[in-house]
Amino acid sequence: MQLGIVGLGRMGANMARRLMQAGIECVVYDHNAANIEALQEAGATGALDLADLVRKLQEPRHIWMMIPAAYVDGLIEDLIPLLAPGDTLIDGGNSYYKDDLARAARLVESGIHYVDVGTSGGVWGLERGYCLMIGGEDKVVEALDPVFAALAPGMGDIPRTTGRQGEPSQAEQGYLHCGPTGAGHFVKMVHNGIEYAIMAAYAEGMNLLRHANIGGAARDLDAETAPLRDPRDFQFDIDVPQVAEVWRRGSVIGSWLLDLTANALSKNPQLDNFSGRVSDSGEGRWTNIAAIEAGVPVHVLSAALFDRFSSRGEADFANKILSAMRYEFGGHHEKV
Amino acid sequence: MQLGIVGLGRMGANMARRLMQAGIECVVYDHNAANIEALQEAGATGALDLADLVRKLQEPRHIWMMIPAAYVDGLIEDLIPLLAPGDTLIDGGNSYYKDDLARAARLVESGIHYVDVGTSGGVWGLERGYCLMIGGEDKVVEALDPVFAALAPGMGDIPRTTGRQGEPSQAEQGYLHCGPTGAGHFVKMVHNGIEYAIMAAYAEGMNLLRHANIGGAARDLDAETAPLRDPRDFQFDIDVPQVAEVWRRGSVIGSWLLDLTANALSKNPQLDNFSGRVSDSGEGRWTNIAAIEAGVPVHVLSAALFDRFSSRGEADFANKILSAMRYEFGGHHEKV
Amino acid sequence: MQLGIVGLGRMGANMARRLMQAGIECVVYDHNAANIEALQEAGATGALDLADLVRKLQEPRHIWMMIPAAYVDGLIEDLIPLLAPGDTLIDGGNSYYKDDLARAARLVESGIHYVDVGTSGGVWGLERGYCLMIGGEDKVVEALDPVFAALAPGMGDIPRTTGRQGEPSQAEQGYLHCGPTGAGHFVKMVHNGIEYAIMAAYAEGMNLLRHANIGGAARDLDAETAPLRDPRDFQFDIDVPQVAEVWRRGSVIGSWLLDLTANALSKNPQLDNFSGRVSDSGEGRWTNIAAIEAGVPVHVLSAALFDRFSSRGEADFANKILSAMRYEFGGHHEKV
Amino acid sequence: MQLGIVGLGRMGANMARRLMQAGIECVVYDHNAANIEALQEAGATGALDLADLVRKLQEPRHIWMMIPAAYVDGLIEDLIPLLAPGDTLIDGGNSYYKDDLARAARLVESGIHYVDVGTSGGVWGLERGYCLMIGGEDKVVEALDPVFAALAPGMGDIPRTTGRQGEPSQAEQGYLHCGPTGAGHFVKMVHNGIEYAIMAAYAEGMNLLRHANIGGAARDLDAETAPLRDPRDFQFDIDVPQVAEVWRRGSVIGSWLLDLTANALSKNPQLDNFSGRVSDSGEGRWTNIAAIEAGVPVHVLSAALFDRFSSRGEADFANKILSAMRYEFGGHHEKV
Repeated sequence: MQLGIVGLGRMGANMARRLMQAGIECVVYDHNAANIEALQEAGATGALDLADLVRKLQEPRHIWMMIPAAYVDGLIEDLIPLLAPGDTLIDGGNSYYKDDLARAARLVESGIHYVDVGTSGGVWGLERGYCLMIGGEDKVVEALDPVFAALAPGMGDIPRTTGRQGEPSQAEQGYLHCGPTGAGHFVKMVHNGIEYAIMAAYAEGMNLLRHANIGGAARDLDAETAPLRDPRDFQFDIDVPQVAEVWRRGSVIGSWLLDLTANALSKNPQLDNFSGRVSDSGEGRWTNIAAIEAGVPVHVLSAALFDRFSSRGEADFANKILSAMRYEFGGHHEKV
Repeated sequence: MQLGIVGLGRMGANMARRLMQAGIECVVYDHNAANIEALQEAGATGALDLADLVRKLQEPRHIWMMIPAAYVDGLIEDLIPLLAPGDTLIDGGNSYYKDDLARAARLVESGIHYVDVGTSGGVWGLERGYCLMIGGEDKVVEALDPVFAALAPGMGDIPRTTGRQGEPSQAEQGYLHCGPTGAGHFVKMVHNGIEYAIMAAYAEGMNLLRHANIGGAARDLDAETAPLRDPRDFQFDIDVPQVAEVWRRGSVIGSWLLDLTANALSKNPQLDNFSGRVSDSGEGRWTNIAAIEAGVPVHVLSAALFDRFSSRGEADFANKILSAMRYEFGGHHEKV
Repeated sequence: MQLGIVGLGRMGANMARRLMQAGIECVVYDHNAANIEALQEAGATGALDLADLVRKLQEPRHIWMMIPAAYVDGLIEDLIPLLAPGDTLIDGGNSYYKDDLARAARLVESGIHYVDVGTSGGVWGLERGYCLMIGGEDKVVEALDPVFAALAPGMGDIPRTTGRQGEPSQAEQGYLHCGPTGAGHFVKMVHNGIEYAIMAAYAEGMNLLRHANIGGAARDLDAETAPLRDPRDFQFDIDVPQVAEVWRRGSVIGSWLLDLTANALSKNPQLDNFSGRVSDSGEGRWTNIAAIEAGVPVHVLSAALFDRFSSRGEADFANKILSAMRYEFGGHHEKV
Repeated sequence: MQLGIVGLGRMGANMARRLMQAGIECVVYDHNAANIEALQEAGATGALDLADLVRKLQEPRHIWMMIPAAYVDGLIEDLIPLLAPGDTLIDGGNSYYKDDLARAARLVESGIHYVDVGTSGGVWGLERGYCLMIGGEDKVVEALDPVFAALAPGMGDIPRTTGRQGEPSQAEQGYLHCGPTGAGHFVKMVHNGIEYAIMAAYAEGMNLLRHANIGGAARDLDAETAPLRDPRDFQFDIDVPQVAEVWRRGSVIGSWLLDLTANALSKNPQLDNFSGRVSDSGEGRWTNIAAIEAGVPVHVLSAALFDRFSSRGEADFANKILSAMRYEFGGHHEKV
């Protein structure tokens, strides 16, 4: 099987390597020539430009796009005149599923198929495999099965779910055809929405552990400071990195994200190499928008998203309004 | 009627003035002599110390304590040996209702009554009157009726509630005997929990109005920045002070807090005289703790409280954990 | 001044009446003939259909649409062929501001102006006046000033904001030209987002008051029931209708919504005429979507929205998943 | 090493079995004789009553209490007269850490040591081992090391955290001495607070997946129903059990709780064996109370807790207030 790949950043390059390890022939292109060269050394066929990439692929072509969501539409427009009916474009990035719907409708005019693939696994995917959530027409998705199987982790040593037996299903191998166009990115979007909230759960809990010793500190006794009812209740110096470690074994909250948190805390227990400005890259927003549109309560997912906004100072004017109100009704001045 | 008052800060002094305007004789004490003098000029009898205050009051004595919650227990201990059975101590500050229960139990040994009064009205109370939420024994509370009636706003020009007629009830005059000891501060506690959330509602909404023009700003197109789907949707330069003003008349969200917000925005439309570090003074915390203990969902009240904590940087370590996780799984670096 | 009005439901009919009281001549149409007749009796000119309505208006025509948002686009399509360049369509309903942008762009082809007006005031508007938030071109909005001034409450007896003096501004009379097309509905949208949260603040707080007596009830002592630490802390029988009443005077949380809550509780203290399925009609959703798109944290506004979804059973499957997880890891059975 | 165990329910019995498999001699008691017999058959020494249990243990005795938190204080009072200075009581259940502080202070009078152990692992602990979070004096905890090592999972096949090498630490073996009295239950409390939120994250996300097909259903077009902007955006029939499965391999959100969710969904994809009334058993509440007391924002943890309260109908009166308000200002009737 042969696959064209456009976009050889962190994710795209690793995916190409994993595919080639599984015997998939990769024709690759990136706007940065150094990225192409690195993969040529690993066995890929480099392309000079998009036209060259298309030329080097046999029909029907399969081209995997692995670039920031904001650039996908432009890339598709560039590719359309180069492609032939029956070819397939795959968006493996983090596109909004509503864009998938529009793209598939746009491409059907040219007889080009469109497959959306939500990809989870991050920088570890080369080694662990990528969890793939796929949307598109049945036959088109089936034709790509060798690609998906190569990228996915496979069964590994993870125990089978109760009741599952016989030939392992796709899902048990780490990839799933979720439904028609858009279904892949829809499921991946929700995946990331969940991810934000799980991350926030650990972060909030560990932040509380870090505050477990505040009973020892001096505290103002004035009308602007909430009293600490019994300082003896907060006299613990908890070793947060050790706690992250102990939770990894046997606890109910063991997870891969916890493993990574233990890694980070092991390297730098105070995390003072970070300032705490947390980015969000779209899927968390879309998950919450989808929930709002569908009338589904997501108190937890939304709180995790808004915490990220707040971490970047976006609540500042709201906070000033609160201080202003407190001054107006109570003559309260902000504490410095 | 005669009332002793201990604590002549912002709140206590104004209450004394309002009481004297209604003919209540006030004997006053404060640790700051200047505060006593100021009220003497306004007609109060000043006391040299607590013993003097007690001496200057006829039995049965009524002493109103208007000091920070953290000092009330100490004051009570100082007063007990000076008082006689049948005297009454009134805590008009922001005590935790659980402390009221303990105090009343402690005082019953000495035959001293205890009344807890939650007081709302802030610096405006002298002019508008104070909304009073009262807990304590029936007879003891009744004996204080002239005091409560003098402090409360009265009917004013606020229209009567549908179905209320005849002699106005206490509640219609702005004070309410809510139940036995602790009930006053319990209701006041919930009042403040609600207050935090109403304040946050306006603050979040106005913050959104202020962001209504972000579609005009340049925006990075990278994997770390969530794309703005259609910048044309955010091209409004909303005049927030004017919006606060227009909402004051005829809208569903008109309120006294909105009036105050309009005041603040009129004085300084950018609110750049505030930094946005928002204090909380106990009742909001206790409201949420009570809800948790009682198993009552308070998604909104709690969010308002936690926003205040975040405004003071208390989420920082949690945010660093999020950034650390993002680096671990995706190689993401924080944006500067 | 003459105004066409299409849509004579609860809101539209009252607005027509208020306009006529101010001397504005109204030509009215509704799909329900009885609604037209009722207004004819009040002095309006009835129209037989849209064409008749247009015919009865002098150019340049001003037609106010007061119908559910879902039907506005259809109505506009029906009106376009009947109108002439220079005419103005006003959407006074609860349209999504993004639809306003599309509509104005669509109408500009025909030379027809479009004004979006967010209207707050509910069934009380006839008496109190309507708070109006207006978007559109300067000249077009100015031409409608008599209409807006007639609908708005005016200064009334609400005290002026600190620092405001001289001739009262529009905002002080209860209407505001907020910006270009869409700005009116944008501000109204945020208004409603705030409204949901203020409502939720009172509702959560009063629900907690109602649970203040749970310490008296028997409580299971098993691993499935969270213990109540000290039942003596929850022994209050709070009279919620009286509390709503007392908060109306002098408290920091006095508001029109509180007045209405006091009304409702006065009529039926248990509110057992309601089941607690709370609708939401769009603006709360859009406010939260706008906040997400703009990267603005709205912990409080979103919680209020999601509570409404939950009130309608939309969290059920999520809750089943929680119960299923608890069974899987701990063998916990649901309590009946 | 010899250990007394009181409480042979689900957790206690399994822990005894795991201890005996590791060569720890167990003397056991339960108020239910059948539970004692079952363990006697597995090799334990049964006791007739607490006095008999104490008699059968060599000094200094170690007695592990594994009973509901509400009964621990009573058990301690029963045991005190039977024990000797130098003996140790271990609370392995889910006690509030503030109770640990009081108990240790109470026991010190009798020279009895107290150790608090938070235990995670649920019904799977017998097989997987228990993650243990321990609080108490250094020497007392050290003396119990064989017990903790036997209960804990050990390193297993979980990869070591980056940077950890040499002899595995306690934490790497799944148990941790977290600090002085109370520290164990404090850390366990936060663990469960996190657990609630992780569970809620999956539950909310999967609930959204289940609603991904609502675009196909008919929808009212009235002022009480929020419109679905584009029904084509919600046309997916997502197979939630398959999605849970695929996320188990290679995705960022893989976890043990996800494994269990996949189990539950595999057995019953609709989960119609559950009604969705979700219990909470104390630690989630205490986590949030601790956060409030310490001034730590926990938007996500609290939302997860309140969702459980709502699942049990505790928001009903709040929702009725919302409906009542909507009727008052807008004449809105509840939709059936």
